[in-house]
Amino acid sequence: MVWGAIATWRMAHDGVVKALDLLERKQHSGDAVEELIKTVEDYPYYKSVGYGGLPNAEGILEMDAAFMDGDSFKIGAVAGITDVSNPISVARKLSDDKFNSFRVGEGATRYAMTEGFHRKNMLTERAHKIWEKRLKEIHENNLNPYNGHDTVGAITLDQMGSMTAGTSSSGLFMKKPGRVGDSPLSGSGFYVDSQIGGATATGLGEDLMKGCLSYEIVRLMGEGLSPQAACDKAVYEFHDKLTARYGKAGAFSLIAMNKAGEWGVATNVEFTFSVGNDKEAPQIFIANMGENHTTKIESITQEWLDAYEKRIKAPIE
Amino acid sequence: MVWGAIATWRMAHDGVVKALDLLERKQHSGDAVEELIKTVEDYPYYKSVGYGGLPNAEGILEMDAAFMDGDSFKIGAVAGITDVSNPISVARKLSDDKFNSFRVGEGATRYAMTEGFHRKNMLTERAHKIWEKRLKEIHENNLNPYNGHDTVGAITLDQMGSMTAGTSSSGLFMKKPGRVGDSPLSGSGFYVDSQIGGATATGLGEDLMKGCLSYEIVRLMGEGLSPQAACDKAVYEFHDKLTARYGKAGAFSLIAMNKAGEWGVATNVEFTFSVGNDKEAPQIFIANMGENHTTKIESITQEWLDAYEKRIKAPIE
Repeated sequence: MVWGAIATWRMAHDGVVKALDLLERKQHSGDAVEELIKTVEDYPYYKSVGYGGLPNAEGILEMDAAFMDGDSFKIGAVAGITDVSNPISVARKLSDDKFNSFRVGEGATRYAMTEGFHRKNMLTERAHKIWEKRLKEIHENNLNPYNGHDTVGAITLDQMGSMTAGTSSSGLFMKKPGRVGDSPLSGSGFYVDSQIGGATATGLGEDLMKGCLSYEIVRLMGEGLSPQAACDKAVYEFHDKLTARYGKAGAFSLIAMNKAGEWGVATNVEFTFSVGNDKEAPQIFIANMGENHTTKIESITQEWLDAYEKRIKAPIE
Repeated sequence: MVWGAIATWRMAHDGVVKALDLLERKQHSGDAVEELIKTVEDYPYYKSVGYGGLPNAEGILEMDAAFMDGDSFKIGAVAGITDVSNPISVARKLSDDKFNSFRVGEGATRYAMTEGFHRKNMLTERAHKIWEKRLKEIHENNLNPYNGHDTVGAITLDQMGSMTAGTSSSGLFMKKPGRVGDSPLSGSGFYVDSQIGGATATGLGEDLMKGCLSYEIVRLMGEGLSPQAACDKAVYEFHDKLTARYGKAGAFSLIAMNKAGEWGVATNVEFTFSVGNDKEAPQIFIANMGENHTTKIESITQEWLDAYEKRIKAPIE
């Protein structure tokens, strides 16, 4: 039997390793995706997801997450949730509800508390320091406040043939209160159909929701395209269209896996991801936009990984 | 030159008449869609949109809205906004922002106040009475609390060839606080591309977001299908798929218009809509699912209209 997992950014790698271990032992793709994303949410040095994530313009850490089951299409999602350890687990629980399965703001947080999810101050001292520093820089230099929006998005395939997609993000650093990006939005941030495959997105949510790229990639795979061909076609055609019609396309990167465990990615910025399946051990790759609507994919170097490790743990001055 | 407007439900008719008047006088499709939807939001007897809309489980009226420009793909959206006269106007204003253009909960309401939108208690005495009565019925008879979720969705085409889509809804009656449906979600609740056409949805948001039907209908029109063929194909194929995979498909109804002003609808429940263009005067129709993935569309009868008028104004006992 085939199985596999793919997820956005280098930060997802430890989670991908755990997910593949579960999948090898015939666990369900839903458990694998939740475990994968929880691993990222729990790690304090990843500053765009869960614990340690960067706060909004008012210093409050608001988080978005979604969970989609590719067998039944059931979806659970939260946006602007606060003070809960694992937004992905809240989203998964909501996916069992026929009504009220997408909750935002205080309503989302109250749902999580009522359902007994672990309450936790998710703003680390380090994240608060980065926020304070950035606030000062913005005031002093009149900078555009927005940068950094690395969502963890993942797709898993289990030995029973079920697929699941999940996303989790603290959204755009310095976002306005209540801002929501693509991560909790079906079709834009994620989509999965176990009979075809799944896709998830990371990048500027405001632009990603203009294109519904996750849905489009799954649809193209359903027409018979490989995950790589589907990603290339959907992402670069939309990049060109948005550049022509809107004037500029924000950063976006998409990943996909089909029901055979084959995978693909496309991106208009430098983008890392982690992937493995029954044939290939989990590995981190780096992708860049190539010529003529193609993607250049290379293995990550130890040098890159060392610099990354140093960067995410550098003292905040 | 061609122009046209189509919108969901009988309640949208007065707005469609106003929109067509603007479009005939060469006004922009964005102005026409905003005027159309404001007309519905302002009318106190429509209990699923704006003023007079029915509140959530705690008696609070939370509203969702979105605005999409088909030339540039720019999108503005709000969810769970309270105490503002015209959510569609807030959504339109947000569509001009490159960042933070989808705002939810308190953040959305605070944005509207800061930007000078009109603050208004949107809960009418009548809506509060309906809520109290329903609450009592639910407690006494152990009923499923959820019914009623009629979003106004509209697409307009102007003489310059620009198209706009908009939606506005108070969401599911008796929803849990912070529940969001499809109306503010790109691809699910709405999508528009001026070079092709647009589509919007009404129905059970939780199920609509499982299918991204607005995006799919626009895509099919882009492949050359007529609006009616695109609606029939997208809606009934997904209805069958969701019934097979999820066990049941909630109510959903989709409308579409292409850049030639031609229109189509498809629905799995009895559904009314209003439409007009440069060739046809505005008219209300009633649609039902036909055989073999087709839609039966008939003119509304005076009898139906009279019964509707009586129903929406009946005393609440």
